[in-house]
Amino acid sequence: MNQDELIQQFRSYLKKMTDYQSAIALLEWDARTHMPKKGIQGRSQAIATLSGEVFRMSVSDQMERFIEPLSVHVDSLDQVTRRLVEETKKTYDRSKKIPPERYEKFVALTSEAESIWADAREQNDFSMFAPYLEKIVEMTREFVDYWGYQEHPYNTLLDQYEEGMTVSVLDELFAGLRKDTVALLNQIETKPIPNTAILERYYDPEKQKAFSEFILREMGYDFDAGALDETAHPFATGIAAGDVRVTTHYYPHFFNAAIFGSIHEGGHALYEQGISVELIGTPLHTGTSMGIHESQSRFWENIIGRSYEFWQCYYGDLQKYFPEALSDVTLDQFYAAINTVRSSLIRIEADEVTYNLHIMLRYELEKRLIAGELAVKDLPEIWRESMKTNLGIVPSTDAEGVLQDVHWSGGMFGYFPSYALGNIYAAQFTRALERDLPDFRDRIRHGRLHEIRQWLGQNIHQYGALLKPAEILRQATGETIDAQPLVAYFKQKFSQLYHL
Amino acid sequence: MNQDELIQQFRSYLKKMTDYQSAIALLEWDARTHMPKKGIQGRSQAIATLSGEVFRMSVSDQMERFIEPLSVHVDSLDQVTRRLVEETKKTYDRSKKIPPERYEKFVALTSEAESIWADAREQNDFSMFAPYLEKIVEMTREFVDYWGYQEHPYNTLLDQYEEGMTVSVLDELFAGLRKDTVALLNQIETKPIPNTAILERYYDPEKQKAFSEFILREMGYDFDAGALDETAHPFATGIAAGDVRVTTHYYPHFFNAAIFGSIHEGGHALYEQGISVELIGTPLHTGTSMGIHESQSRFWENIIGRSYEFWQCYYGDLQKYFPEALSDVTLDQFYAAINTVRSSLIRIEADEVTYNLHIMLRYELEKRLIAGELAVKDLPEIWRESMKTNLGIVPSTDAEGVLQDVHWSGGMFGYFPSYALGNIYAAQFTRALERDLPDFRDRIRHGRLHEIRQWLGQNIHQYGALLKPAEILRQATGETIDAQPLVAYFKQKFSQLYHL
Repeated sequence: MNQDELIQQFRSYLKKMTDYQSAIALLEWDARTHMPKKGIQGRSQAIATLSGEVFRMSVSDQMERFIEPLSVHVDSLDQVTRRLVEETKKTYDRSKKIPPERYEKFVALTSEAESIWADAREQNDFSMFAPYLEKIVEMTREFVDYWGYQEHPYNTLLDQYEEGMTVSVLDELFAGLRKDTVALLNQIETKPIPNTAILERYYDPEKQKAFSEFILREMGYDFDAGALDETAHPFATGIAAGDVRVTTHYYPHFFNAAIFGSIHEGGHALYEQGISVELIGTPLHTGTSMGIHESQSRFWENIIGRSYEFWQCYYGDLQKYFPEALSDVTLDQFYAAINTVRSSLIRIEADEVTYNLHIMLRYELEKRLIAGELAVKDLPEIWRESMKTNLGIVPSTDAEGVLQDVHWSGGMFGYFPSYALGNIYAAQFTRALERDLPDFRDRIRHGRLHEIRQWLGQNIHQYGALLKPAEILRQATGETIDAQPLVAYFKQKFSQLYHL
Repeated sequence: MNQDELIQQFRSYLKKMTDYQSAIALLEWDARTHMPKKGIQGRSQAIATLSGEVFRMSVSDQMERFIEPLSVHVDSLDQVTRRLVEETKKTYDRSKKIPPERYEKFVALTSEAESIWADAREQNDFSMFAPYLEKIVEMTREFVDYWGYQEHPYNTLLDQYEEGMTVSVLDELFAGLRKDTVALLNQIETKPIPNTAILERYYDPEKQKAFSEFILREMGYDFDAGALDETAHPFATGIAAGDVRVTTHYYPHFFNAAIFGSIHEGGHALYEQGISVELIGTPLHTGTSMGIHESQSRFWENIIGRSYEFWQCYYGDLQKYFPEALSDVTLDQFYAAINTVRSSLIRIEADEVTYNLHIMLRYELEKRLIAGELAVKDLPEIWRESMKTNLGIVPSTDAEGVLQDVHWSGGMFGYFPSYALGNIYAAQFTRALERDLPDFRDRIRHGRLHEIRQWLGQNIHQYGALLKPAEILRQATGETIDAQPLVAYFKQKFSQLYHL
């Protein structure tokens, strides 16, 4: 077989895997939106079977017969094929290093641990979860040994979610960000809290839905290639090119969740909707990393959606949707309420300033767990100490502390930093946007969001996973990763808001 | 490997196929209910890939290694395994006889033909569709030659949808049914048409939905193991045990479609919801044939849902849902309107008496096409003649004639008789029900529908495809197939209604 034929067969093999992934994405979306409760057993089985098949294909002898010869001539390949070979080889090599029976054990362990974690959180009992978490940490450390690592064992975990990211980069990045954030937070906390009670008035869920759809359309989200549905824990998902869906959750007596949730997930969805058609049917038709993906959702949610200019444009509309709740609330009062900054216990409820402190806390604990420097049994106490140090407050229960997040029960060590990276990238992209479109803030004020979306499309979205995160960043901004734009953005926004 | 191990591996292979089928069912359900329009290309691709994989597994060497040795010792197997071997072997043998490249050509041809047919119907131009239909008939005849047949080439097509059914049985069955139906119809058509304008008043779609859900609950449909959604062309689908969904369509100015559609699809769904848990994860966890499946939907739609007793129970509720439309309509007027019998052009709009005449017309044409006794080009003319003979009316366009149904464009010759068989079986089951529950009609009148559902569950549903259609019929009724109960039911119901 000549090389062209080999490439053609390789691409068709990947296309088949993409079709399976598409089915899995729909099975998962449906499980969280429309599936009746008695469907869960059959659904779990179907997802497990298809996922197992995708895994099997990714480590098959057939896959080896594609990537071994193509890797040898990698420089003679076109850009897409080269990157496909590189990515599939990386997955192949990584998966091949884990003995299959250990991998199966890990899948079974984390699957069981997730429901144990949910019960433990419900009952505020860390000791229920601890033995599972110990095994998960132990197996993760075993896997790191199989995979190998450079400099720090945590690097090989980070690399799964953010290709090329390392502990040494994060340590330096986070140190500066922590110092500047804490300084700003200390200043803010001397000022009175805005009136947030206005956000807890009655907001008709049907109207929340209509307003969410309106804003998504304004952002340029294509409803002919997507949908907005309701779920308990919102997410966005790319089922196929041409089918990228958003979910949200409506609370009748809380404004923020549905609207900012829709904008956040809409940010993820715009990314997936904007990927070049050339990458359809390949594993590159997706976001390049968790951090870059999160940069898109956080950009839209916070930098656009919580900006003064955005509400200069849309607050009048919003008042028309919710006259009972908002007719006596001025734009400035509303803007202050949705931008309240205060230390709090729960990550997913944190404001944009304190949010990163929650991430850094988890990052430090994960590093030490993976390095074997911290025992699982000591986690609750260390958590409380870290909260005190980082945020100045201490949870009175483990449910509000170490048990609050699902990630560890799924063995997702290395994932949390993505959230902070997303915030950092988003601010860097914003600086580049302000450079390329000097009237950026005017455009927001006039609802010309599609022009901003266009910039993101040209500089980020279209590439999918064809470029690595650092390449996307460099191409769009000319920079390497840097927390200073985020700090500068915080200082400017909140100095003004809190009259610092 | 000993036989027990072989059986275990065989069952686990079938379970994997079942999981794929479950994913396909969801992909198809979603495509017809929630999918955004730009999702169609990716969706078709994903369905094609998964269907191709199921087909590949059904004819694989691995499958042969299961069924060949197990077929030899078939008498030593338990009932479920025996039937699994029998069914998979039948599919295997059948599929293996078709050269793969001919099968692929047929799939491509029918896929293209369906959209051509839709355009041809839209434009009322049979000549657009004719060349495709000619090829489809030709290839179907070629396949029948590969498969072989006994007595009549059409038998091997019938057997796909109704195992064991033959032309000689149908010819006799239909001859009697036709004669009696036409005689009854002639009597009815001497009487005035009831006032059907009351069914074309305004019925709020939201309330149609609420009433449909109410009736489905009354029937015993389990919403924790299903859902009611809206679609253009309603259907029911079993995605998994514990997830059997119903769809319907709401017309603001037509009562019948959504309510009787929901009851009809609900009848299909009760069947799938009632299959024994022992059959979960096997291809026997489904209806045993198209005819038996249709017997369940038509039983609920017509014999229950269009009965006087049913509306004696529920008409008061219905009037509360739609006071503007129905407060001036008596139960007797409503009952007459929903049971109007008149010759009409379109099969899917036909009443229960004339419906079977539409089926027999198609059956006769299909038999002659497959036997090579009728040319595709002559179909429109023959259609008009047959309509004249069978129903006494003639369509003025082919769109209302030979082009009205999708089935032939998909190559589904042999399917149509299922609809009439469903009506025939349903009446036979009803006679058995009346024998086993002498107060059957009182139970309907008092809304004790769950007791009727229980009888169906015990006598039909639980077996899934473990028993063949004729076995189900014999076990439930003690009879072989017989159109007389249906004729007797028609005579009794419509003599009363039309004062014959």
